[in-house]
This record gives sequence, structure tokens and C-alpha cells, in this order.
Amino acid sequence: MNSATPVPVIRLLDGVAQDTPPDVVATEEPLEIRIEGRSIAVIMRTPGHDQDLAAGFLLTESVVRHADELFEISVCPSHSEGRGNVVDVLLRGVEVNWESLTRHMFTSSSCGVCGKASIETVFQSFPKVKGHWSIPARVIQGMPEKLRERQSTFEQTGGLHACGLFNLAGHPLIVREDVGRHNAIDKVLGFALREYLLPLNRCMLMVSGRVSFEIMQKALAAGVTFVAAVSAPSSLAVEFARESGQTLVGFLRGNRMNIYAGEHRISYS
Amino acid sequence: MNSATPVPVIRLLDGVAQDTPPDVVATEEPLEIRIEGRSIAVIMRTPGHDQDLAAGFLLTESVVRHADELFEISVCPSHSEGRGNVVDVLLRGVEVNWESLTRHMFTSSSCGVCGKASIETVFQSFPKVKGHWSIPARVIQGMPEKLRERQSTFEQTGGLHACGLFNLAGHPLIVREDVGRHNAIDKVLGFALREYLLPLNRCMLMVSGRVSFEIMQKALAAGVTFVAAVSAPSSLAVEFARESGQTLVGFLRGNRMNIYAGEHRISYS
Repeated sequence: MNSATPVPVIRLLDGVAQDTPPDVVATEEPLEIRIEGRSIAVIMRTPGHDQDLAAGFLLTESVVRHADELFEISVCPSHSEGRGNVVDVLLRGVEVNWESLTRHMFTSSSCGVCGKASIETVFQSFPKVKGHWSIPARVIQGMPEKLRERQSTFEQTGGLHACGLFNLAGHPLIVREDVGRHNAIDKVLGFALREYLLPLNRCMLMVSGRVSFEIMQKALAAGVTFVAAVSAPSSLAVEFARESGQTLVGFLRGNRMNIYAGEHRISYS
Repeated sequence: MNSATPVPVIRLLDGVAQDTPPDVVATEEPLEIRIEGRSIAVIMRTPGHDQDLAAGFLLTESVVRHADELFEISVCPSHSEGRGNVVDVLLRGVEVNWESLTRHMFTSSSCGVCGKASIETVFQSFPKVKGHWSIPARVIQGMPEKLRERQSTFEQTGGLHACGLFNLAGHPLIVREDVGRHNAIDKVLGFALREYLLPLNRCMLMVSGRVSFEIMQKALAAGVTFVAAVSAPSSLAVEFARESGQTLVGFLRGNRMNIYAGEHRISYS
């Protein structure tokens, strides 16, 4: 579980090399995910919480929906000089359609849906969220600092995305970091799945960067009602949030925020 | 070609809604890429330069290597309420192995290689770079500002990744923006491919964000010798650059830069 790796570096200041120690960068290594011994995906990720990552990946790719369907998740080191771990998942009560799984992965891992028809398909597989609650804007305003406080590896490397799950009091339940923003989310959602916390309709998900369509889709897979981001949303993320009933907050910085959807869950004046 | 989309927004300042105009966010829409009528991938991208994107995608996915192999790239609007374009590529002199293509996409679009063996496979398909030249550090130092000056949509939305191709005088030849960082690179490399500029061993590629393994791999597919980034590299990006002979510069900001690989192409004192 080395989330940061030291590397030699030459640091220039105004074109002059400085006498400095090695740099520390975010570790990126492949993880192969198998279902019952059969490889279904290889993900470039930051090592650590690999079982949660696998569980979250299978959740957000619609392979599993309940924690009970995960019978066992075992981590095996690879044979190739220690690089590249393998996670093998044994399922229970799930009939895997291998052909459609590969086809599905093929499409969705390219971040893809195609046209309106496919977006409707997404809503068919993941129901719209329900969550009749609202919290004060100031609670939301406090989340970025709490996320940042827990980004231990980012502090070292400046190179990791973070995702945090918060309760309605604005308290972080779990924070994960990864070189891939999707992985950070899958790690958080996989943890929640395995802890029997789904659906997360009384939780808030916060991401350190931007929000694309696929982020909202992954959140919806876990029933997440509320997504907040430090940076900008895409047009399709906004549209998706409105259609799915999710709340979407962007540019959550300092004393400001932009509400793009589901404003009834935020009390403001 | 709407790279920015207006959306309704509620802007809060200290919990108080401000009276402000609609926000403008980066447009994200699906693009289906077909080869001779057969769908091979659906990509979530910012509309614009779709032919370049398709060409770059086929280049970096090892389907084509030369501009002459692209016989025709046609863009057809979709039938679903104007959302979701389709690009159909007619190839010349290329035998497409559909099965391995789907398998390859499936793996690589998850950003994946698995272990040392696969990294060696990458080197087999993309030769190591050659480029015996060096430029002054100050030329590199001027690149971020030139990239930023050309990021017209980022200025509006704060939500786009950028990629620029620079000549050895530090002059930007082409800059592209996209919600997906891989797409911005594919658009640049696809443009260069179609303009018969490959291999790009006397060019520098600059990206607005972080550098992962897959960015270096895409650069290598086009023979790019030099990659610079505003933010951090991952451990595998550094390792890949060293093994492929590429120069990799990170944290290129203000009067500073970190050289992680290929320092012989930069003259400094």
C-alpha cells in the first residue's frame, strides 16, 4: 500500500538546478479485476483499498447491487516482479452475463452513453433518488476543508483526486484518494456497499475536481442524493442531476457555491 | 460546435443567493466512433474537431499509423433529438481485427495495462522515441502562458482540460480543449496525423493538468519526445518516460519546473 513513490527529480528555478531531495509522486499501478477467476477489467489505480475499489467498480458497472452478492474478495499479488495486483471476486446469487459485461465495460469505461435512449436506459437500471431533507448552506461550506484535511497523500504529491462521503451534519465518514478520479469514487462507494450503508440517500459525496456525467452516474448507482465539487460541472452532469433528482453543487470554495440542481436540499436565504 | 452551454444556476455567497445571470459550463456530449459503419467506441467529449478526435483515437489505440490509412472521416448527426454525433471512418489498407480491437478497447479504455509484460508489449508496438535536440529552460517556461492564452472555453467555464503542441521555439502550433483530458490529446494528435506531421519527435506536448501513464502512452503513439504538464506526474508516467526515452516535465509553473526524465533535452545551469 504505497500511495506515494519517491522519484529522482531535477528542480529548476529560473533555469538553475536546485539542490533538493527526491520528489514524491502519486503511485499509479495496474489492478486486474476478476470475477471467479475471469479477467473483466484492468484499472490503473493508486494501491490501497483494492477490495473496496473492486466492489465499487462492480456496483457502478451494474454487476452487483447488494453487499450479500459479494461472497468473497481476495487480493493476490501478481507474478510480474511485484507489480500489478489481482483482485478476484466470488459472487453469490448473481448470474453474470459475460458477453454483455464485456460489451458494457467496453462502452462504459470509455465514459460512454450514446444519445437520449441510452440515458433513459441508465435511469431504468438506477432508480431516481429520493431524499426529502435539507441542510444549511454553511454545513456544505465546511466540507472542502474537511476533505482537504484528510488528503494525506495529496499533501505529499499534489497528484491525487479525492472523494469523501459526508453525513448530513457535514462530518466526513470516509475519504479516499487515487490517481484516477473514478477510482476514488469507486473506493468510497465500494466501502459503503460492503458496510451495508446503501442506498446513500442521506449522505453527501464530495469530489476534489470537476464533475462529469460519469461521476453523477456512479453516485446514482449507490443512491447518492447530493454531489458537491470543488470545480466545474459539465453540461451533461447538470442535465443528469436534474433528471435523476440529485442535488449538484459546483465551485464549492471559500464562502461561495453554485447550485446547479436540487436546490430544495439546501437552505439558504 | 458548442463547447460551452448556458445553464441556470443559484449562486450563494455566505448562504445568500445572489442575483446573477446563468452560468456557462463545458459541454459534454457522446460521440460514437465507427469504423466502416461498425461501432467501436462511444466517447464523452466536448463537441468540436470530432474528425481529429476520431483520428487521434484510432492512432493512439493502434488501429492506424499513417494518415494515408484514413480514407474518409464523415460526421453524421444522430437521430436522437440532435444529441450524440457519429463519426464514421473509412480505412484504406488496414485490416481491422475486430475481436482484438474490442478486447483492446475494453482493456485500454479502462486506462489499463497489466504488469511488466504488458508494458513491454506497449514498447513493441510503439518504438522508443528519438530526438537529439535540446532547448533552453526559458523557452519551456514560457509555454504555460501561451497555452492559457488559447484556452478560450476554459476562461468561460473553468471546466476544460487543454493540450497544446509546441514547436522547439516554444510556439504553439495547435491547442485543443475538452472535458476529457484524453480527448484533448487525441484531438491534437489526430490533427497532427491528418496533417502528415508524424512522428512528432521535434515537438513538445503540453497538458493543463496531471500526467498519468496513459498520457505518456498516447504521446508515444505519435512519436512525441517531450511532454510538459502544469501539475504532477504519476509514478508510472515517470517510469514510462524513462523507459521510452521521453522527456517529462511536471509542475511547470511560474519560474519553476521539475524534470523527471530526459533532462538532456533541456539546457539549464
